[in-house]
Amino acid sequence: MPTAAPLGGSILVVAGTHGNECNAPWLLQQWRANPSALEASGLPLALVHGNPEAAQIGRRYVDRDLNRCFAPWLLADRDNQSLEMRRARALLEGYGPCSSSPALVAFDLHSTTAAMGNSLVVYGRRPVDLALAAGIQQQLGLPIYLHEADPAQTGFLVERWPCGLVIEVGPVPQGVLDAAICRQTQLALEAGLAVLAAAASGCLRLPAELVVHRHRASIDLPRQSDGTPAALLHPQLQGADWQPLRPGDPVLCAADGAVIALRQLLPQGLRGCTQLWPVFINEAAYREKGIAFSLTTRECWPLPEQALGALQQLAARLRQAGDAPA
Amino acid sequence: MPTAAPLGGSILVVAGTHGNECNAPWLLQQWRANPSALEASGLPLALVHGNPEAAQIGRRYVDRDLNRCFAPWLLADRDNQSLEMRRARALLEGYGPCSSSPALVAFDLHSTTAAMGNSLVVYGRRPVDLALAAGIQQQLGLPIYLHEADPAQTGFLVERWPCGLVIEVGPVPQGVLDAAICRQTQLALEAGLAVLAAAASGCLRLPAELVVHRHRASIDLPRQSDGTPAALLHPQLQGADWQPLRPGDPVLCAADGAVIALRQLLPQGLRGCTQLWPVFINEAAYREKGIAFSLTTRECWPLPEQALGALQQLAARLRQAGDAPA
Repeated sequence: MPTAAPLGGSILVVAGTHGNECNAPWLLQQWRANPSALEASGLPLALVHGNPEAAQIGRRYVDRDLNRCFAPWLLADRDNQSLEMRRARALLEGYGPCSSSPALVAFDLHSTTAAMGNSLVVYGRRPVDLALAAGIQQQLGLPIYLHEADPAQTGFLVERWPCGLVIEVGPVPQGVLDAAICRQTQLALEAGLAVLAAAASGCLRLPAELVVHRHRASIDLPRQSDGTPAALLHPQLQGADWQPLRPGDPVLCAADGAVIALRQLLPQGLRGCTQLWPVFINEAAYREKGIAFSLTTRECWPLPEQALGALQQLAARLRQAGDAPA
Repeated sequence: MPTAAPLGGSILVVAGTHGNECNAPWLLQQWRANPSALEASGLPLALVHGNPEAAQIGRRYVDRDLNRCFAPWLLADRDNQSLEMRRARALLEGYGPCSSSPALVAFDLHSTTAAMGNSLVVYGRRPVDLALAAGIQQQLGLPIYLHEADPAQTGFLVERWPCGLVIEVGPVPQGVLDAAICRQTQLALEAGLAVLAAAASGCLRLPAELVVHRHRASIDLPRQSDGTPAALLHPQLQGADWQPLRPGDPVLCAADGAVIALRQLLPQGLRGCTQLWPVFINEAAYREKGIAFSLTTRECWPLPEQALGALQQLAARLRQAGDAPA
């Protein structure tokens, strides 16, 4: 006897989770006005503006960072009625896996002031996420920042959907519309949708391995007692995201011109590393989080055995929804 | 019988007139903590943070753009008690030419998201301003944006001092500290101070000509009825500040990929120009002012005859103040 088929679902595309990242929301408006402008591979999409109230005031957020609001314990705390907590719950009520029109995959479109280029951010090691990222990496060669084991940064939006990742494009200043940033964002999203469509039709082939840049630590500027930075990022590091750093490389310069090398800043656990790869160098919004840049190790991982199958199963449910009468 | 010697005065250096431009305020803190970090050529300086309240909230301004508050009619309107109008009056009461500790020259240190490099902005054609700018241009080769005849943009800070100009450095996102931006800002300021010191000692030699980029028009993006941009800056224009544009060059691309050439956007008075030089391309803060970029003509001007003498006279008064006992 066959079991009941799992419910179908759509793909959630969120733009403007941060109110001062204006490129993806501009794209979203274009796609809504002219759906053929986005090559959606025939898949059903839910196009959502993440934080329109923050966009209205041109700030990352109104009360708190929406992309740190999705931790289960925060969502469950109904006493917390900040604007972004309410927005997080509304997004889950509207498109979450338990909603009446569930999305099965979430793409969260971001931009950064760091020179990240066109890149992907994956949270943790869910096999479906790794399969989706590997498929996009295979198509476009994008680097993958695997964010994990960072207790100071949790509660990311895509973690609350069965599969999801962030498309992160930069450098672009906050509040600046940039045609190249828009183009890259759209390319990465279309590649992701093409991967899902191929998985749904059973014809997806994935590489045996993927390259990830695994989060290891975040480094802040040294600060004076009043919080003022006592040093700046070294000009050689500025814009050098994804470029390998060796322990002797300069990473900071103090006001008096003194140069500080990477080895002077490494936490205990990384002192044996001969190379580390920096990401999110000088992201404006991370100043308040005390992050001048993050350090990763570049690792070649075999794709987990069950990853392709898991993505195919999920994608098949997308097709069901896509095939359903409108 | 000799006339009474004019009073001496100092040089006003303002950093952070806009609260989200954080590089110059960082420099200011360093110079205050360690005056020898700035080569001041022996001249008396007043180092002032322009808009600390706006910096506190990380925004360009609290109520209105401080660098548009210095029009005499606005200053005289005592009914206008917005934070920035009060700040403008306070700066004039503290350091204005009629105050008890007057500054004679004002340097206003700005940064921009546009790729302006290290550059100078001069308002109008005061001979002393042109002499000072020519001296800096001679030393460092910096381009000069001569802002004039723009009724939509008035009330700039430096206009209320006998001599003054803006040092404008970019590209840098709002809220991002960048060592190269700091370095360029300091270089330009030190060059300006060296010019004034040479003028004060009578040994300044100026070139017979200076090159200015004279403001001719500002161009906004085409917009839909709700204000959304209907096109973006063409990727070829992004970052191409100070590079000549011809009427057939692409400057915008519409959402459907259509390319719009410069000639389609030129106001009547500029249709005969075969070349124009764009500046402030995609400055984030000019979005609210309806400026996607400004157009200039590149002109080689003879330095006005009286310019060197006027600067020397002014600078001699600085020396008097500098020589006075502390």
